[in-house]
Amino acid sequence: MVHKKLSEKKALLNKIAGSVKPLNKEKYYGIARSRHNRLIKPAGSLGRLEEFAEDIVAITGKGRPVLGKKYVCVFAGDHGVCREGVSLFDQAVTAQMVKNFLTGGAAINAIAQSSGAEVLVIDVGINADLSRLAGDKFINAKIKMGTDNIGDGPAMSYEEALDSLICGINTAVLVKERGAGICSTGDMGIANTTPSSAITCFYSGKEAIDVCGKGTGVGSRIIRKKADIIEKAIACNITDGDDPVNVLAGIGGLEIGAIAGFIIGCAANRIPVVVDGFISTAGALIAVNLNPAVSDYIFLGHVSMEKGHKTAVKLFNEKGFNKKPVLDLSMRLGEGTGAVIAMKIIETAVDVYNNMLTFEEAGVAASRLNA
Amino acid sequence: MVHKKLSEKKALLNKIAGSVKPLNKEKYYGIARSRHNRLIKPAGSLGRLEEFAEDIVAITGKGRPVLGKKYVCVFAGDHGVCREGVSLFDQAVTAQMVKNFLTGGAAINAIAQSSGAEVLVIDVGINADLSRLAGDKFINAKIKMGTDNIGDGPAMSYEEALDSLICGINTAVLVKERGAGICSTGDMGIANTTPSSAITCFYSGKEAIDVCGKGTGVGSRIIRKKADIIEKAIACNITDGDDPVNVLAGIGGLEIGAIAGFIIGCAANRIPVVVDGFISTAGALIAVNLNPAVSDYIFLGHVSMEKGHKTAVKLFNEKGFNKKPVLDLSMRLGEGTGAVIAMKIIETAVDVYNNMLTFEEAGVAASRLNA
Repeated sequence: MVHKKLSEKKALLNKIAGSVKPLNKEKYYGIARSRHNRLIKPAGSLGRLEEFAEDIVAITGKGRPVLGKKYVCVFAGDHGVCREGVSLFDQAVTAQMVKNFLTGGAAINAIAQSSGAEVLVIDVGINADLSRLAGDKFINAKIKMGTDNIGDGPAMSYEEALDSLICGINTAVLVKERGAGICSTGDMGIANTTPSSAITCFYSGKEAIDVCGKGTGVGSRIIRKKADIIEKAIACNITDGDDPVNVLAGIGGLEIGAIAGFIIGCAANRIPVVVDGFISTAGALIAVNLNPAVSDYIFLGHVSMEKGHKTAVKLFNEKGFNKKPVLDLSMRLGEGTGAVIAMKIIETAVDVYNNMLTFEEAGVAASRLNA
Repeated sequence: MVHKKLSEKKALLNKIAGSVKPLNKEKYYGIARSRHNRLIKPAGSLGRLEEFAEDIVAITGKGRPVLGKKYVCVFAGDHGVCREGVSLFDQAVTAQMVKNFLTGGAAINAIAQSSGAEVLVIDVGINADLSRLAGDKFINAKIKMGTDNIGDGPAMSYEEALDSLICGINTAVLVKERGAGICSTGDMGIANTTPSSAITCFYSGKEAIDVCGKGTGVGSRIIRKKADIIEKAIACNITDGDDPVNVLAGIGGLEIGAIAGFIIGCAANRIPVVVDGFISTAGALIAVNLNPAVSDYIFLGHVSMEKGHKTAVKLFNEKGFNKKPVLDLSMRLGEGTGAVIAMKIIETAVDVYNNMLTFEEAGVAASRLNA
């Protein structure tokens, strides 16, 4: 890897993020709706399946899109704030879970297999040496051994934040080369609801306590502690709130930055990207604050049970992005689990759009309204 | 087919429906939850996926259930009430669509293929001679050439209603023999929102206008006409409201009766059955009024946009069945389309339950709560 200067990294990020253009929805929705209305069914009767397929036509720019492989990219990193006791799990579990992702025993493996999706795991900042892990399902892109404790100071340097974003962008390019036609985001990182709550808190302007949930299952005392840490971190660690890279460096996580970069990279390559739950949505908030046009390329996979997620989703919609999550299954696991289930439904919507016959092809008399 | 007397048919129905026993939820949920809580994830974090898998364990009575093939059975019939002008489509479209189901060009084919489900189409009462249609995806079980006009009198005789229920029961046995481990209901029948609204109206006690929707896309004038027909049909055609077979004969449909019988047949064989939208839920209302225990074996696949469906779902819950639909995708097509998408999610839930490792197997340190 060629070592770039900070200014070159910043220019690279700005170039890729800036290359994402708002979709020409009028044009592509028109193309897709025209086909949907000729298919042998009452007009509009497939509801959101029609919406999903129309979005895919617009994102890919293809009247008859072929989605190709489905990928879920699980970005993993540790969090210095863990030592404040904000999680029920030990930090070592991040590395243990990553090993399970590679041997196939975790929830995301079972869901990906059931849905026909490929899993790729990226170490962006796990606090363990995993350099001996091998295989094409794993990428060693470690930036540092976990973030610093946001209770004491910024999570990472500005350059490390840029590195995490660029790691995500590179991952999007990699899976595109491997044939990905639609992607999901996933996360693994013990304690990462704390930085995700911080990002949601910062961008929503809400009180920290209103966006802090129980994560892996903590009680109200620890939730109050998380909120106190977040209030202080936002006040002390962010020096330029208008710069999402500064926000990420101050209160974020390495895997959250990589998720943000991955979303940007997908958008720049016109690959639809399904955002998982609370952690991934925090990444998406960083991404859309770098360039709001990125939102056009995003599906929100599901509503997480984690307390702050509804606020994060609402925040999208207040900005006019109008993103209604595909699913509401009371999940709160992360790893990309909700997004992959949603991704399968989006694929089904495209299959329906591509494979159904029109009234004319099928020799069926259209209704007096369809005709 | 051996011709049975009416009394024998009634005895057969009562025997099969009566054989369905309430699930021992305490026992089976206990078994399933014990496993879920040992899997490598925070306890309860898979939300409704855990609920679905626990229901499957209880329904099948197997601690590690194997679902086998996924089947959607699409029951088709015509409706004499069509001649009142309650649909935008001509009655001939029922037969045209059935032919499309068999050649593979309809929405249910695309969705079933995308989800890995088999489609079986059953002619219970289409107003066209389809006896020359062949193949193992089609069953000719025609009872009559469509129902009679419920605006003029009962939809069918008591014996025909029994025949439709028994057709559904036989279909459940057939797909079980073909390896089905989970099934979805589907319907095709131009004008069948009218009898479905009538059944929902009768069992909810609501005004007909409050459960009459736009079906394939009719306007408010036709909706009022549907409501008037339904009010009159309920008053004139039902002679014994305590007998669901009499209700079905008075205001139902042949495919609705077969769906009811299919649900009962699945329950009697401990096969989980995913109920599709408005038409299928009307069938489910007939089924659970024959034996409330049938409800334990049902998943409600989705919330349909058809107006009366929320009432029908609420009716389930008022009776204590507590059935929350799996999906809400604003669909209103029928054919089993919503149910098959839900069935795939339920399969995924079972895959997760079966294929994830436990903390012990994976060598991951459980949380202080899981441990």
